[in-house]
Parts: sequence; C-alpha cells; structure tokens
Amino acid sequence: MERVKPRTLSGFMELLPAQQAKMERMLQVLRETYSLYGFAPLDTPVIESAEVLLAKGGGETEKQIYRFTKGDSDLALRFDLTVPLAKFVAANYGQLAFPFRRYQIGKVYRGERAQRGRFREFYQADIDIIGDGALDVINEAEIPAIIYRTFTALGLKGFCIRVNNRKILNGFFAILGLTDRAADVMHAIDRLDKIGAENVAAILIDSVGLTQAQADEILRFITVPGGSAEKLQYLAQYRGRNEVFDTGLDELTAVAGCLPAFGVPEDHFRIDLTIARGLDYYTGTVYETTMTAHPEIGSICSGGRYDNLAEYYTDKKLPGVGISIGVTRLFYVLQEQNMLSEAVVSAPADAMVLPMTEDIAFAIEAATALRDAGIRTQLYCEKKKFKARIGYADKLGVPYVLFIGEDEIRDGVVAVKDMATGVQTTCTLPEAAALIRTGLAVRGSGCVIAE
Amino acid sequence: MERVKPRTLSGFMELLPAQQAKMERMLQVLRETYSLYGFAPLDTPVIESAEVLLAKGGGETEKQIYRFTKGDSDLALRFDLTVPLAKFVAANYGQLAFPFRRYQIGKVYRGERAQRGRFREFYQADIDIIGDGALDVINEAEIPAIIYRTFTALGLKGFCIRVNNRKILNGFFAILGLTDRAADVMHAIDRLDKIGAENVAAILIDSVGLTQAQADEILRFITVPGGSAEKLQYLAQYRGRNEVFDTGLDELTAVAGCLPAFGVPEDHFRIDLTIARGLDYYTGTVYETTMTAHPEIGSICSGGRYDNLAEYYTDKKLPGVGISIGVTRLFYVLQEQNMLSEAVVSAPADAMVLPMTEDIAFAIEAATALRDAGIRTQLYCEKKKFKARIGYADKLGVPYVLFIGEDEIRDGVVAVKDMATGVQTTCTLPEAAALIRTGLAVRGSGCVIAE
Repeated sequence: MERVKPRTLSGFMELLPAQQAKMERMLQVLRETYSLYGFAPLDTPVIESAEVLLAKGGGETEKQIYRFTKGDSDLALRFDLTVPLAKFVAANYGQLAFPFRRYQIGKVYRGERAQRGRFREFYQADIDIIGDGALDVINEAEIPAIIYRTFTALGLKGFCIRVNNRKILNGFFAILGLTDRAADVMHAIDRLDKIGAENVAAILIDSVGLTQAQADEILRFITVPGGSAEKLQYLAQYRGRNEVFDTGLDELTAVAGCLPAFGVPEDHFRIDLTIARGLDYYTGTVYETTMTAHPEIGSICSGGRYDNLAEYYTDKKLPGVGISIGVTRLFYVLQEQNMLSEAVVSAPADAMVLPMTEDIAFAIEAATALRDAGIRTQLYCEKKKFKARIGYADKLGVPYVLFIGEDEIRDGVVAVKDMATGVQTTCTLPEAAALIRTGLAVRGSGCVIAE
Repeated sequence: MERVKPRTLSGFMELLPAQQAKMERMLQVLRETYSLYGFAPLDTPVIESAEVLLAKGGGETEKQIYRFTKGDSDLALRFDLTVPLAKFVAANYGQLAFPFRRYQIGKVYRGERAQRGRFREFYQADIDIIGDGALDVINEAEIPAIIYRTFTALGLKGFCIRVNNRKILNGFFAILGLTDRAADVMHAIDRLDKIGAENVAAILIDSVGLTQAQADEILRFITVPGGSAEKLQYLAQYRGRNEVFDTGLDELTAVAGCLPAFGVPEDHFRIDLTIARGLDYYTGTVYETTMTAHPEIGSICSGGRYDNLAEYYTDKKLPGVGISIGVTRLFYVLQEQNMLSEAVVSAPADAMVLPMTEDIAFAIEAATALRDAGIRTQLYCEKKKFKARIGYADKLGVPYVLFIGEDEIRDGVVAVKDMATGVQTTCTLPEAAALIRTGLAVRGSGCVIAE
C-alpha cells in the first residue's frame, strides 16, 4: 500500500498526552473560575457566513482569515470570539437577560506567517459583560478580581494587572488642545516600553509636531511614579478642565477603590497610564496583565470597556467590558519557560490494575470498585512479561499499581504499590480506594503553573 | 451605518444559555466518565492537510468534506476523529505507550444537505484503545462497561447495549459456503429492522441467489431468541466447522462473561447477531446502543474492533477498539423528546448579590466570600428599580438572591432568599454560604437526562 506521511500542519498545536493533561487542567481552571463570576458558557460555530463575520471588515487580520466557498456559500472561520458574540447577542437580543455575562473558550483561526510560538489555530478564553443601553462601572471594577483569581488558581504568583482609562488619555489630550492629533500621540506613547522616553519625546516633537513643553508634560503625565493613591492624586490636578477626563478619573477611582473588597492585593495591581490598547474600539477602562519575571512576553490577558458591541448588526446600543486570554500562546510560553508543574498528575489514570493470574474476574471487580469510588483506573491485561507491564505503568506515570495474584484472590485483597515511594500495602478494596484518594489529594493540591 | 443581518448558518447548533448549560453538563459527564477508564484526552487540529486527511479516501463522506486552499496549502476540516487519531498515533508512535487509550471530544464537519436534525458541525465524543501489534480481548469486553456507566451518569435508564462479533458472521457465511457473497448477504440482513424477515429472505433468494434452505438458516441464525446464555448455546452447535467462527464465538463469550464483574446489568445488554456496522473496517466485536423508548432514533453510541488503525500512514500493525457518541445529535434528540431535565440548575450563577444602598463595599465583600466558598455568584449593581432587578434574577433562574440593605450592612449579615420557596433567611456570610451549598447539593444531584 502507498503510504502518506502522517504530519500536522505547522502553526497548529498538537500535544502529547502528558502535556495535553496539563492543557486540560488549565482549561478546566478557566471554566471553573469564569463560572464563579456568573458567566454563562457560550459555544458558537467555528464556521460563519463570511458576510456576517466580516461585517466590520477584518482590519489587520483580514488577509489572515480562512475564507472559502462550499456550494454557493461564502464561508469563513472565526478569527476571534468577539465578532461571534456580537452576532449572537444581536440575533438573540429578545431572549437574553441583560447584563448578559458569557464566557467562551474555543479555537480561533488566523493564517499568520508560520514562526516559532505563533499559532494559526489557538484557544481564546474570553469573558464579556454586555449591557442593554447602559452598563454600570462596577462591572469594569470586577474585571481585575476575575483576572486575579484566574491566574492565582492556575498557580501564577508574579503577575501584575495594569489598568488605564481611555477617557483619561482622551481628556488629557483635549486639555492640551491635541484632540486632532490624539491618534498620533497615542501611537507614540504606546511604544514607550520598547523605545524609551527620549525617543518617544523625539517622535512627539519631530513627527507629531508638539512643542517641547507639550512633549514633556505628556511624558511626565504617563510616567508619573507611585502607587494607585499617588497617581490618582496626581491626576486630580487636571480635574475640572475637561468633562471626559473627569469621568475617566471617576471611573479609574471607582475601579481602584473596589479592589480591597474584591480581594485583589495591592501589589498585583497598577495604574499604568501608558496603556492604550488600540485606537478606537475601547472607550473606558483598559486592562493588560504581565508576568513579573517575563515582561518580554507582553500581556497575557487584555481587554477593556467598549460602547458598542454589535453596531454592525443592530441599532441597539450594547456597551460592554471584556477580557481575553490567549490560552495556546500562554501554554506555549509556560512550556518554554519550564513553568508547567511536574508535580501535577499528568498520567491518564490514577491507578492501574495488573492481574497476575489467568482468572481476571477479581481484577475486573477491583477496577470497577475503584471507578465507583471515582478513581481513574486502567485495567491492564495484555499478555506481556511482568517487567513490560511495570514499564508501561512507569512510562505513563501512573501513581498507584494494584497487583492481583492467587494469594490476593484467595484473601479478597489487593497489593497496592505507591510508584513514587515503592511502598507496597496489602489491603481490602475499600482500604485501597481510601489510600489512593488520600495520596491523590496531596498530589492534586498542586497548581498547573509552578514558579 | 449599513447593517448586516446577524444569522447563524443552517446545520450549525448554537444554543441559548440555559440549553448550553445542559450541553456543558453532558460534555463534562463524558469527560469525567471516559477519564475514569484511564483514557487520556487528545486534542487534534480542526484543519489538516487534505492529503493526510483523505489518505484513505473520504468514502461516502468525500463529497461532504469542507476542503479549501490557503496560499499553496490544500486543506480540509476533519470529518471524524478517527482519521486524526490514526495520523497522531502513526506520527508519534515512538513516544506513546501501548495500549494507547485516548478520548477526544471535539467538533467535526460534514457539509450534508441541510435538514431538521442533521448537523454540518457536530460534536463527537470518541474513545479508542490502540494496541501495538496485538490487543487483548479484555479491551473489547470493557467497552460495554464504559457505555453503561456513561449513559447512566447522564441519567438515561432505558437503553440497551447490543453486541455482535464480525468473525461469527464471517465464519458462519464461510460454513454455508457463501464467503464470496458475504457482502451482499450482510447488506440484506442489515436491513432486517427496516423491512422485516420476509423481505430479507426474498432479497437473499432473488437478488443474492441463495437457496430457500440457506435463506432460512441465515434468518434463523440471526434472529435466534433468548438471552445471552441461550444465544451462545445456540451458536455453539456450529463450533469446530470454521476457525474464524470459533474465534469469534470465544470473543463474544469472553465479552458476555465479563459483564457481571464490570457491573453491567443483564437487562442493559443483548447479543444481536444482526449488527454488522459497515462492511470492511470492523473485524471483531461491534457495538450499537439504542434507547428502549425510542428505537426509531437508531444507535446513539456505536463502534467496534478493528485490525489496522493507521495502515495509510504506517506499516505498523495497530489493532484497536473504539466507540463514538454523536453528542450534538443526541442532544438534539433529547431536546425534541423533552428528555432534558428541568431540575438541573441551568442558571449561570447559584447566587445573585443585590445591594440596596449606594455603598456597595459590603456587597462586593459578600460576593467575594461566596466565590471563595466555591459558589457561582453574580454581583448585580445596575441602576434599575427593585422589580427589574428581581425580574432579572428570575429570568436567569438564579436559585438564591442575597439582599444587602442598610440594616444588613450595619449588622454584618445578609438576607438570603430561596427563589423557589420564597423563604428569606437573615444570616452571616458563612451561614449563607452553607445554606446555599446545602440547597445546591440537593438540586445538583439530578442528572441532565430525565426519563
């Protein structure tokens, strides 16, 4: 027979079982944490009508979109989870209760140029809160709490939620009389991290045409040092000069003020006036989250407040706030940095039952009893030598092996071996289940990320 | 602004939140049950190289496949989870431990003619056990246990796992001297359920060219009445006349014999000699599962034993056994039959915190405390009238609402209303958490399917 080389397309992540177990754990933590905040799971199709998906135009991603025809239909694969959300809310407006809080964890597709660490198929894990006409600022204040709990539940310790408010920037530019050049100014300060203050000042003066004084004031403004209290106090000096600025400052004050009640520690939060997050979509609070030890990775969770989710589909005003985690890229980065815990059980089973006799009825009963007790159990009956059987359990990393020989069958007991310590215990089935459960509880307490 | 009508393609299931909650529950039960049997989760790309995906040829589904080009690449969307598994195992052979047990729950794509109850994007939930060169029959015997536990965990009671062995059919045809006409005979008996015994006999005689005696023997054989013991005894009369038949009978005897130890009740299992499941892929035990009250729906979980998973990719012999549940279709059918439980909590939150004052700090603390206790909590602070707020909680079906007014803030307590009974209790936060948890434990014990 002629054979085809089995290969997976480049830019598509396909993990071996032990790594996939960690990815599943991450996805489960995301589902559970998002659910704790009252978000409903949503599942939209991967394929949409191209007309619907590209109603807004794909922007920078348009070239990357997987678009094709099937019969008469012009189709495309979703490139994010926001456009499908907008479609869903507009299409089902009458049947939803607002604010509508949904999470969606799913694969999206972008045919980017293939390179290390860039993916063409990747998971996004999004939450959004959509209001009908209005949405209280408390929803913006709650987002840092969700980010904090999510990454803490994953096991990440060194991270910082950086927050800004677009109204403050827009109001500030208006105060300086720079509203018509706001986009250029924003573009320049967005690069502060990469090129430094001096180069930003040079661009502001030479390219954007600002005076030295204006450039100085902007740089002083966005780089003002101190904690949240100091920054809010500094910003207060501009109060009363522009309505948009004042509203933005009120919102930022509300967001920062709610953090203690939401349980977000001060050292995991920072007001960062340099964050802009693109030029037009976001209108209020914006968020970025960076890993303290790896600022070079950039933001691992971003989002913000917007005024109009679905304007391409409906005349209903649907303001919202949302964040997105690029799960596939995050997983890749954690893997690269050796930050995925080795302590997490990544074996497909907690226990393996190895019958040592021809008669396997008791071995089957033992496996069934363990499964009834909620223990993930594999029954291994292949006709192999003892060494090969143990080698198999070892290769999978199964933490407990149960041997069942003639003596055990006669006495109605099992010999349980803890594969980590080598300790072997002969006991009844309920005792074995209890022993394994206790051992797993200790191992299972670890998080998927280890710093 | 010109607007695009927001619509979802026909043949693509997109559920509203309350229904999606039930779907998520089903998927979670499948993940957990499959995991109990030591299957590792696998996640392969939705897009594959067309050359790889269609190595075997798409067969009947070839026309239905979503195939397109992107740049120079000839791509296709997966139409099942078996071909990607074959690719994965062939590509990663050296890094896997065999038997390799994997489950995969994911969307697959078939551009079928759109009609009610037919889906172009649908979830399959597959398990397979792949051996390296050989695979013990115990793996075939374990499959009914997995099917039984899975549907029982979902809440289905009236279902029957029907099992046959292809070697018995092939051996029997050989005994009758009909090996060269086996495919035609199989095709005729496969229609027994639909057209009845008389018409099958007519086809066997008129079209296939069998004698009356041969047709009679075949029909007597496949419709022999009785339980497993009687059927196995009936089959035993053919022993010693054909090696393949004898092997098949040994295997079927082993599968039926293991059921008690695996905990599968006799009334949920039936040997059904009419099951063929296609003509060439399966080589041993084959499975179908039908709902007792709805035989018209056909099989809701099918599969079987095969000899060569990945022959199009590798010369390694990889025998296996697997089953598949078409989750999207099953969900659709259960919905149509009103078999999805209304008792399951389908609200996105277990509790809603409603602050009745301007100062919401204590309300935020209350929500945070409930979330710390693992209770899915929504904080509702929109500026609406009381009636609208309660109406919102009602519309979502949130089981508990916590009111926090001036009195509660002063006394450090909350007023918890059970929305089902209307009973309101004023208590501390830990007491509220305990009260809600107890109430949820009662509700949560229900399964997603209710008969």
